[in-house]
Amino acid sequence: MAQLSGRVASMQASPIRKLTPLSDAAEKRGTKVYHLNIGQPDIPTPPNYWQAIRESEPRVLAYGPSQGLAVLRKAISGYYGRAGIEVPEDRVMITTGGSEAVYFAFMAACSHGGEVVCFEPFYTNYNGFASMAGITLVPVTSSVENGFHLPSRESIEAVITPRTQAILICSPNNPTGTVLTREEVATLSDIVQKHDLFLLSDEVYRDFVFDGGRHVSVLEFPEIADRVMVMDSISKRFSSCGARLGNLICPNKDVMGGILKLGQARLCPPTMAQYGAAWIYEHLGASYYHDVALTYQRRRDLLMQELEGVPGVFFLKPEGAFYATIRVPVDNADSFAAWLLSDFSVNGETVMVSPAAGFYATPGMGENEIRLAFVINDDDMRQALGILKQGLLEYPGEGH
Amino acid sequence: MAQLSGRVASMQASPIRKLTPLSDAAEKRGTKVYHLNIGQPDIPTPPNYWQAIRESEPRVLAYGPSQGLAVLRKAISGYYGRAGIEVPEDRVMITTGGSEAVYFAFMAACSHGGEVVCFEPFYTNYNGFASMAGITLVPVTSSVENGFHLPSRESIEAVITPRTQAILICSPNNPTGTVLTREEVATLSDIVQKHDLFLLSDEVYRDFVFDGGRHVSVLEFPEIADRVMVMDSISKRFSSCGARLGNLICPNKDVMGGILKLGQARLCPPTMAQYGAAWIYEHLGASYYHDVALTYQRRRDLLMQELEGVPGVFFLKPEGAFYATIRVPVDNADSFAAWLLSDFSVNGETVMVSPAAGFYATPGMGENEIRLAFVINDDDMRQALGILKQGLLEYPGEGH
Repeated sequence: MAQLSGRVASMQASPIRKLTPLSDAAEKRGTKVYHLNIGQPDIPTPPNYWQAIRESEPRVLAYGPSQGLAVLRKAISGYYGRAGIEVPEDRVMITTGGSEAVYFAFMAACSHGGEVVCFEPFYTNYNGFASMAGITLVPVTSSVENGFHLPSRESIEAVITPRTQAILICSPNNPTGTVLTREEVATLSDIVQKHDLFLLSDEVYRDFVFDGGRHVSVLEFPEIADRVMVMDSISKRFSSCGARLGNLICPNKDVMGGILKLGQARLCPPTMAQYGAAWIYEHLGASYYHDVALTYQRRRDLLMQELEGVPGVFFLKPEGAFYATIRVPVDNADSFAAWLLSDFSVNGETVMVSPAAGFYATPGMGENEIRLAFVINDDDMRQALGILKQGLLEYPGEGH
Repeated sequence: MAQLSGRVASMQASPIRKLTPLSDAAEKRGTKVYHLNIGQPDIPTPPNYWQAIRESEPRVLAYGPSQGLAVLRKAISGYYGRAGIEVPEDRVMITTGGSEAVYFAFMAACSHGGEVVCFEPFYTNYNGFASMAGITLVPVTSSVENGFHLPSRESIEAVITPRTQAILICSPNNPTGTVLTREEVATLSDIVQKHDLFLLSDEVYRDFVFDGGRHVSVLEFPEIADRVMVMDSISKRFSSCGARLGNLICPNKDVMGGILKLGQARLCPPTMAQYGAAWIYEHLGASYYHDVALTYQRRRDLLMQELEGVPGVFFLKPEGAFYATIRVPVDNADSFAAWLLSDFSVNGETVMVSPAAGFYATPGMGENEIRLAFVINDDDMRQALGILKQGLLEYPGEGH
């Protein structure tokens, strides 16, 4: 019988969504579930996003250019310009979500069977695109002990082989909230030059850096301009995950030419959302970005306040994004997360978290860690963290 | 130096769009260019599409389900039901355009290095997705002489190897306008059963069948229900190419499970467009579909009227879609199409056509054929065809 291809059969199911049936069952029982498991922001989409779309309604909803509308590419160039980073419009490719930017970057940088060095824990959806592109993600393990900062240069160079074609980073990081320092990015710049690799940089959380810190982009290192690609998205920046708009920045003209061919194959990104995105890139001032970052910082502080000092819980203060990966006193966070949904509640309420093992490529890693996304309002955050704390205290362990 | 991967470097540039620089130059000179080269319909997007979206505007533009909104999957199930084809909602995967449906079908059906038999000329963008999926399209040539109908069963079976995993068809056809008969689909059904293959069927033009004919779907053959996938889209049906919404129908539950994993990797299709699409699927009556098909039929008739009898021009009457692939009396249609844009005009107007060679996989095929899309209004059609006719008469040939 005609069968599903092996490469799709062996793809990982999403660890972020795989507990959803248990969560649905809990809600069906009348239990309120606080979702700390998924990075779906609760901040309102800027209302002018909708207005800009309404004002652009055409008679015929036609294909747009494969590289995206000129007005949006110009607006993104302006956004980077305000951050002191020069990005010519013709080096910006509009993509269908940051997702497509990741896929295009893998395809353009790597041959089938190629290897990409990345740092675990990492955003789990990289796995799906690696499967699709037929490449292998080779992990170097970072540790909760030092706040998931860059492992030693030696440990990175140790996994580079003749098949290695790129290093992949994400800063501010999903799932850890870690923000790489200038020194760390400089080390990576050295390594990719020495070993002739691409440096693929997921910077979708670049505006969410806490405590007065500043994001360091790989685009600030001219010596690697011909070997970097930056993956970006409006999903988190403007709370518009459902728009499916991202972009890929690639200063290397030849590589950009290849990316355009990938773009032509799928014709174009969604047309109308681009009008909305162009408007908000052009018109939202510094205060918007500042306020959103402060909102996430305040929730990060709540997280510290509620969970610091809980016996067996360990993590360093997240520096950006809206995630924390924390060590918890359980043997198997998968079972713990399932238990929270199926066997535990406080006054008819419980909490959903992501077991961290799915964010690691090395089997056995992250089994006593969970990822929390702080994307719900302060009151709900406090309530959810209180329930999580109580769950940790009451959890009877596996095989209870 | 870090270089573009070989697999992207070797991808074909779009033959539909590659003459665009010449067309841009002509327009810059003040020449009006009639576009018969691209399948961008001119029919208005149903106005209620916009209204349905406006009425659904949420506070937060969130991720939707990876398989698409339930309301749209239900509406599509209803659309097929009205055509007498039972498609359960859980066998419908909403995709980002028909493009993504093609890519997902290739990935789910084929391993890396697998082969897919297809009939040339074929929709050129299949090439891009074949490159991305690392598969080979193995062409069987169909001929303008018999209106591009199915080649003999023997010629199809002759190219099947142990690496063959699927047969790919498109009916009504882009780029030929051919509609496969029930007997032809039955033959294909026999072949895929005998050789244990998938049958991948692009049916995006299914509503555009002329002269009282009826489209035959692979979904009407229960004996191959476990081995078919249907690729569909709202782009042409509802003149909304820029929405980027399509769907993949797969009755085989296991294969659908794999397709869902592909969908989870890219999170979700565009959220808002799905509300608009659901509305039009639910509310537009039979007269809408009838009127649109008649519009294209009338233009097809104009095409026959203007081009039949032109010396050296040959084609059979297109039976559906809105394309014709026609033989023209030139040695190299690439050069002819370029000449039309660069060196020819009638009263300051010219016409853009797609050279057909890019729709063939066999080198040298289609060099004396062009594809015409009849997606402009009747007056413009008449004008454009008159210019084309005159161009054919005046063309001095290559190396003029």
